[in-house]
Amino acid sequence: MASSDKPDTDYGKEVRPPPPATKNYFAVDVALRVLLFASALTAVLVIVTSNQTKLIPGLAGSRKAKFSHSPAFIYFVVALSVAGLYSILTILASIAVLYKPISSTKFLLHFAVWDVLILGLVASATGSAGSIAYVGLKGNDHVQWGKVCSTYDKFCRHLAGSLAVSLFASVVLVLLIWLSIFTLHRRIPK
Amino acid sequence: MASSDKPDTDYGKEVRPPPPATKNYFAVDVALRVLLFASALTAVLVIVTSNQTKLIPGLAGSRKAKFSHSPAFIYFVVALSVAGLYSILTILASIAVLYKPISSTKFLLHFAVWDVLILGLVASATGSAGSIAYVGLKGNDHVQWGKVCSTYDKFCRHLAGSLAVSLFASVVLVLLIWLSIFTLHRRIPK
Repeated sequence: MASSDKPDTDYGKEVRPPPPATKNYFAVDVALRVLLFASALTAVLVIVTSNQTKLIPGLAGSRKAKFSHSPAFIYFVVALSVAGLYSILTILASIAVLYKPISSTKFLLHFAVWDVLILGLVASATGSAGSIAYVGLKGNDHVQWGKVCSTYDKFCRHLAGSLAVSLFASVVLVLLIWLSIFTLHRRIPK
Repeated sequence: MASSDKPDTDYGKEVRPPPPATKNYFAVDVALRVLLFASALTAVLVIVTSNQTKLIPGLAGSRKAKFSHSPAFIYFVVALSVAGLYSILTILASIAVLYKPISSTKFLLHFAVWDVLILGLVASATGSAGSIAYVGLKGNDHVQWGKVCSTYDKFCRHLAGSLAVSLFASVVLVLLIWLSIFTLHRRIPK
């Protein structure tokens, strides 16, 4: 609010927000989007490399655990990949605004609108993969669903890591939306 | 903040947005929040009443299917209950602003900030309950998790209904956040 004082004083020119505030916003925005990209990429890589083959005592031959054996994990990989690609596009857009602050208000609006959808996607994917992983860890006696993690330890370690990182990505998305909302709010004259 | 309403109106022109727009916004807001409340309540009621007892041929006695047998469904009920309570509070707040449009910009900001968190909660709960319900419907041969829905038909019908309604609640939350963002954006002088 302090930085919006200058344009106000010379006339009634609140039309264009002051460059320093805009720069600050888009600098933080780029930083958060880089974090989002890094976490989405990490989550996808960690779950994709979770394959584990084990010899099962009772069975002839070995058995493999793969993320693609569960539709929930496939959805998770797709959702996090979409979030990663989306973050690349918005990093570029955000950097463009940083160096040429034209129509930054419009960008703020568009970012906020799309970030909300991506948050819904990432949060639901984290929830669905998380609940399947939890059954894999604890089993469910009521329906005789056996534990998986007791056999496939590496597989489950990868799952846990991937889920933690995607939870972090959800938090980053919430922060991004909040940043947009607060910046929009700050530009409304008091 | 409330007292700054009057001095603004006889001073600047674009300082305070026109009352009709504010009224319109908060009328739509109340309508959407009522929808959110109705859908959250429906989702909770439908899943809570999903209990089904069946005689299983191979086993002595009968077996019960309950939502509380799965942690994912418990999380789902808690999340949707929180969303329902939240919607009651915000309906009251929104109606208060409708009849006494003071500091409505501040309300817009607060609504948007909290709605984002509730969206994350409802989306992740829908995802986790949905993935468990999907395993119940289709089973998973890779890990020998058997189907549940082939036995407990009423239980699964209730689950499906509840999930559909909570998906609708997520959509309503997205619309609510968009409404806040667009309204904040509209108040920024061009």
